[in-house]
Amino acid sequence: MENKLLFFVFLFESGAGGCHGCADYRNHYSHGLNRLRFYLGEIEAGMVDLQNRQPTIVKESVATALVDGHNLSGPFTAMFCMDLAMKKAKETGIGWVSARGCNHFGIAGWYSMKASEQGLVGMAFTNTSPMMIPTRAKKPTLGTNAMSVAAPANGDDSFVLDMATTAVAYGKVQIRNRTGQTIPEGWAMDGEGKETQDGEAVRGLYPLGGKEQTGGYKGYGLAMMLEIFGAMLSGSNYGPNIRFWNPSNPENAGKGANLGQCFVAIDPSAFEDGFTDRLGDLMNICRQREPADGETEVLVAGDMERQHMEKCERLGGIPYPENQITEANEIAKQYKTEAMRPVFQ
Amino acid sequence: MENKLLFFVFLFESGAGGCHGCADYRNHYSHGLNRLRFYLGEIEAGMVDLQNRQPTIVKESVATALVDGHNLSGPFTAMFCMDLAMKKAKETGIGWVSARGCNHFGIAGWYSMKASEQGLVGMAFTNTSPMMIPTRAKKPTLGTNAMSVAAPANGDDSFVLDMATTAVAYGKVQIRNRTGQTIPEGWAMDGEGKETQDGEAVRGLYPLGGKEQTGGYKGYGLAMMLEIFGAMLSGSNYGPNIRFWNPSNPENAGKGANLGQCFVAIDPSAFEDGFTDRLGDLMNICRQREPADGETEVLVAGDMERQHMEKCERLGGIPYPENQITEANEIAKQYKTEAMRPVFQ
Repeated sequence: MENKLLFFVFLFESGAGGCHGCADYRNHYSHGLNRLRFYLGEIEAGMVDLQNRQPTIVKESVATALVDGHNLSGPFTAMFCMDLAMKKAKETGIGWVSARGCNHFGIAGWYSMKASEQGLVGMAFTNTSPMMIPTRAKKPTLGTNAMSVAAPANGDDSFVLDMATTAVAYGKVQIRNRTGQTIPEGWAMDGEGKETQDGEAVRGLYPLGGKEQTGGYKGYGLAMMLEIFGAMLSGSNYGPNIRFWNPSNPENAGKGANLGQCFVAIDPSAFEDGFTDRLGDLMNICRQREPADGETEVLVAGDMERQHMEKCERLGGIPYPENQITEANEIAKQYKTEAMRPVFQ
Repeated sequence: MENKLLFFVFLFESGAGGCHGCADYRNHYSHGLNRLRFYLGEIEAGMVDLQNRQPTIVKESVATALVDGHNLSGPFTAMFCMDLAMKKAKETGIGWVSARGCNHFGIAGWYSMKASEQGLVGMAFTNTSPMMIPTRAKKPTLGTNAMSVAAPANGDDSFVLDMATTAVAYGKVQIRNRTGQTIPEGWAMDGEGKETQDGEAVRGLYPLGGKEQTGGYKGYGLAMMLEIFGAMLSGSNYGPNIRFWNPSNPENAGKGANLGQCFVAIDPSAFEDGFTDRLGDLMNICRQREPADGETEVLVAGDMERQHMEKCERLGGIPYPENQITEANEIAKQYKTEAMRPVFQ
């Protein structure tokens, strides 16, 4: 299904278009074109402020800052914060920026990688609308709270961890539903807080680790950690106080998400020399481990994405399912902009 | 079994004794008296340097430091680093200390809680000997790499996440073996990198998240993130270069672990006012969620430990299994020190 049609998508170099186009290119399809209607819906419903203004630095030290994103476009505020964190890291070894008044920023990896490209360790964290059911509970309480850590290794190599703190993203459940498959154990629960294999019955996700017995309380704890980094430090919304992300719900009109986010940059040169060599070595040690099945190669965080980007390069574009293209072209028509250009079908 | 005997154990206020006694008190029995022979064995084998010297600050900025622990006692170096991180956090909002030449420091929570007690967000990270099998691999490559995040909430409340990045600690497998139980799915693998329910056949642990399909690659990525924070930044040993923790192996004699650790403190007062109120509120929101089974209360990271400490207070001591006490008293005799004092049997 995914490869039925192949189209070329222009990858914007900055701002919102950049991080969303980059999501598809990096095989995180849940965060790319798939969300275009949501982002546009937010703008139409006045949920995102597109006025010509900047986020505000409310308070700062040489190494920290508290930022108010004033409900401006998510990627715009996020990049402002990451730039600030990188500047501080270059001056003092570390920059830690917590922000409120934020909107959805696309993939967290977009920001951490900006730091990594400049030789820094980069991190980005965000809370999101309630979807994760805490260990022992019945109803969603925390978001799929996402985090990314990126770090430069020698040559062109890099480590890029980009993950939700739930067992899976909800998009993976949706994909199974579309193709009529059941979902595996350890992914999701129904409206009663009971494990379900029926994707249509899903009302909440397990934290990373799944059930209590297999360490689900750790994923739940990590989601709380992200609330501390973003929301608790900044004073944004948190937990079940965050509205569901549904621009077509009239109750949300004119209301910002007020998410809590956090951006960190660390300069390895403030520590021991040889960072990139060590990281490259550790990554290669992992990659060269014997695979359990004798053939499937062992990967490191970022490799799956790298393989997908190489595939896109070979194909000359990003492969999409047909209905995704149809929708994108409807949107292009509606906004009187250029339709997607097929590389081949 | 656990409650067969009940003894009183003096909780040392600082240094090695403190963090290990605290482990048992906090229900992390794998890291307490259980390890006493290991720690003593390390000293006997010259694997830990007990000379009267201090860790060295190799490089520092107002917000960061690189420390060399010179293979001194693990908790001693760790507390040195955490103190340094807290001092910097009070001056600049954040302190980030990465250290090499470290030894096993007990529970990570001991250090993060020191910061939390002073109104700071505290974090501690360590790599450990290879025990975790990366997604798709056959053999252990990374450690059970442990992390802790602690933060103060209003009143006496606090958040304390203290976890390994594997699905479970190896100690949980050992406990099942002692009682002849099989182990659950998603915990561990045999020597061929295949899932096993036979605890005796276990040769490596799953990362948090278990199999690839349930997000095991995320736990594997988090373990790598801890290698970045500790080892990559500091230049310590990492991954499979870390020796197995076995003081009775003559090959280890005179060799330090040279672990990589990281200690972070953040001052909430550098950000938005009301941090402890928000955190207390979020924790109570979680605790008050309806339980899925209608009766088992929903907990927050740190609550399980709090319940165990309350139990110890009621009992007037820490409950131990009989063989643990027998061993401790043999050790006491060997080192000509006082035996454990039973509260009641």
